[in-house]
Amino acid sequence: MRAIHFDGRNATLRRDLPDPEPQTGEALIRPLRMGVCSTDLEICRGYMGFTGVLGHEFVGIVEEVNERRKSPLVGKRVVGRINCVCRKCDMCRGGLPEHCRARTVLGISERDGVFADLFTLPAINLLEVPAGIDDDSAVFAEPLAAACQIPLQLRIEGRPFVTVLGDGRLGMLCAQVMSRLNATVRVVGKHPEKLALCEKWGIKHRLLDEVGLRQDQDIVVDCTGSAGGLQTAMGMVRPRGRIVLKTTVAPSTAAPRAQALGQRGKTKPDQPAQSVPIDLSPLVINEIQLIGSRCGPFPDALAAMAAGQVDVVSLISRRMRLSDGVEALREADKPGVIKVLIEP
Amino acid sequence: MRAIHFDGRNATLRRDLPDPEPQTGEALIRPLRMGVCSTDLEICRGYMGFTGVLGHEFVGIVEEVNERRKSPLVGKRVVGRINCVCRKCDMCRGGLPEHCRARTVLGISERDGVFADLFTLPAINLLEVPAGIDDDSAVFAEPLAAACQIPLQLRIEGRPFVTVLGDGRLGMLCAQVMSRLNATVRVVGKHPEKLALCEKWGIKHRLLDEVGLRQDQDIVVDCTGSAGGLQTAMGMVRPRGRIVLKTTVAPSTAAPRAQALGQRGKTKPDQPAQSVPIDLSPLVINEIQLIGSRCGPFPDALAAMAAGQVDVVSLISRRMRLSDGVEALREADKPGVIKVLIEP
Repeated sequence: MRAIHFDGRNATLRRDLPDPEPQTGEALIRPLRMGVCSTDLEICRGYMGFTGVLGHEFVGIVEEVNERRKSPLVGKRVVGRINCVCRKCDMCRGGLPEHCRARTVLGISERDGVFADLFTLPAINLLEVPAGIDDDSAVFAEPLAAACQIPLQLRIEGRPFVTVLGDGRLGMLCAQVMSRLNATVRVVGKHPEKLALCEKWGIKHRLLDEVGLRQDQDIVVDCTGSAGGLQTAMGMVRPRGRIVLKTTVAPSTAAPRAQALGQRGKTKPDQPAQSVPIDLSPLVINEIQLIGSRCGPFPDALAAMAAGQVDVVSLISRRMRLSDGVEALREADKPGVIKVLIEP
Repeated sequence: MRAIHFDGRNATLRRDLPDPEPQTGEALIRPLRMGVCSTDLEICRGYMGFTGVLGHEFVGIVEEVNERRKSPLVGKRVVGRINCVCRKCDMCRGGLPEHCRARTVLGISERDGVFADLFTLPAINLLEVPAGIDDDSAVFAEPLAAACQIPLQLRIEGRPFVTVLGDGRLGMLCAQVMSRLNATVRVVGKHPEKLALCEKWGIKHRLLDEVGLRQDQDIVVDCTGSAGGLQTAMGMVRPRGRIVLKTTVAPSTAAPRAQALGQRGKTKPDQPAQSVPIDLSPLVINEIQLIGSRCGPFPDALAAMAAGQVDVVSLISRRMRLSDGVEALREADKPGVIKVLIEP
C-alpha cells in the first residue's frame, strides 16, 4: 500500500509498505479524509522521536475487525480516539486511560498513522459518525475534541475575558468552542486572512501587533504552536489568571524540520523559540495557573458538529491526494494556510 | 546609617546613607533580626533589576509612625507584609492587593529593604508579634507565610502523595506546612545534612539521586530555587497532577551574581539552568497543572509559630552582624547553609 512515512529525517511517499494486519480487537480502516495537524509538522522536526506512517486525523470506513464475532462496525463510517491503551496500568485503572503508561498513539508514538491506504486501530477506540455529519466535517473530530477538552479543565465563573492566542488550525476550533461559554472571547493572531473567519462567526479578533500586553485577561489559551506563545500569554493574563497550554513543540530548531519537508535552508522566524530560554518568573510573581491540555472527548465534538454549533468546513484551505502527501505537509506549514485535507 | 546596598553590580556595606524618613502612613522600623533569602541572592544576579538596600525578612521595633494621631504600633515588635500597594487599581479593588499594579516591594522592587539600621514600611502592612514568639522565630514570618500560601492554592483530596523538591530555606518551611495536611509528604533534596532535619520532624526524605523520575506524585512543590527544578518536577508528577512553582530565578547566568558577591570567576553548576531551554511539552502531554505561588498570609504564619506547629529555629545556620552583611550574603549562598540571620 501507499503511505506517507517519516524515517526520522525525511517524510516520503512509500508505495512498497505491506497492508497492515489488524491484531486481535483491532479494526482495519480505509480512510476517506485525513487532516494535517501541526503535530505532524512537529514530528517532522523531531518531536516525540517518532518514525513510521504519519497522521492521526481521519474519517474512514471499517474494512474488517479482528474479533471472534462479526463486529457491527464493519462497513461503518468512523472516527477514532488516537490513544491505544493497556487497560491494566494505574492510569487506566484510575480513570485516566488517555494517560495510559503503556499507550501507543496513532501516528505519534509507536503506532503507524493514517496517511495511508489502510491503517489499524483498536475497535474500542472507534465511534460511528452520524449520517448528518459529512466526511469534510467528520475529519475534524479529533482536533475539535482537543478543543472541547478546555471547558472540561476550566471552571468558568463571572463571564471572564478570554483570549485565544493563535489563529491557526487549533486556535480557530478553540475560539469557536470557547465562544459558546459564558465568557467574552477574542482571538489574537498574526494573519488577517485567517482572522477574517472570526468575523463570519461573530467572534471578536485582533492582530497581535495591535494588542498590548496588559495582563488583563482572565484566561489565555495558547494555541500558537510556537514556544514563544507562552511568553506572550504571560504578558496578557492577569495576576491569578489562567493559561491553557495547547502548544507542543519540538525542542529542536526549525532547521531539521525544513530539511525533513525538503525545504533546505529555509527557516521560519517565529518557530524555533523553544531554543530561546523562557523566563518563567512571571508565573510565580503573578501566581498564574498554567494548565496543560491535550486530547479531548470525541462525543462532545461529534455532538457540536451534529448540532451545527461549530463551522469546521470554512477552515479547509486545500485538498490534496495521498500521493501528494509530502507536498500536503509543506502546504500546511505555509503562513496563510489553515487546514489541508488529504483524500485517498 | 549603615545598610547593605546593591548598585546593580555589587552589594556593599554603606555607612553614609541618610536615615529614611517615613512618608504619611509609614512607620520607621529598627530591625532586631533580618533573614537572608534566596531572592536576595537572585537580586544580586540581576533578578528584578533592583538597586537599593537589600532584604525583606525582618522582625523589628517601630520607632515612629507618620500619622496625625499617635499610633498604637509605636514601640511594638512587628513583622510586615512586603508588598506596598496603592489601594486604587483594579487588583487592589478586586481583592488581590498583593498583585497591586503599582506596588513597590520591600528590598525587591522600587523600595529600600531591611538590611539597614532603619527602614520604612506602611503602618498598615505591620502585624504585632505575640509575646510567645521570640525574635529568632518571628524573623521567619515572611518565608513561612509564603509556605502557608500553598495549601490555600491547592484543594487536597484523598491523601495525595506530595514531594517537596528542594531542601533549602523555603523547602524546609514548605515541607513542615505540607506535612500538616492530609497528605503523604516527602522532601527530595541534594544535601544529607539538611535532610537530617526532616528526620527530627518525622518527615520522609530522600536524596534526589536515589529517587526515580516515575511520574507518580500527585503534587510536587518546586522549592529548588533553580531553573532546572521544573524539569525534575515534571519527571516526578503524575499525569493530571499538579506542580506548585515557588522558584524564581534571574534569567541571567551565575556569573554576574558571583561577581556581585565578590566571588570572581566562581560559578555554581546547578544554578544557571535558566539559560538552558526548558522543554514544556510534558506539561501538555501529561496535562499537568502548574501553579505559581508567591507571598502568603502572615496571620497563618504567626499562628503556626505560636502553636509550635513548625520548627524554624533549627533552620538557623549562622548569625552575623549587619556590618558583615555582604559576607552574610556569601555565606547564605553556600551549599550546606540553610538560614543566615543578620543582627544589628
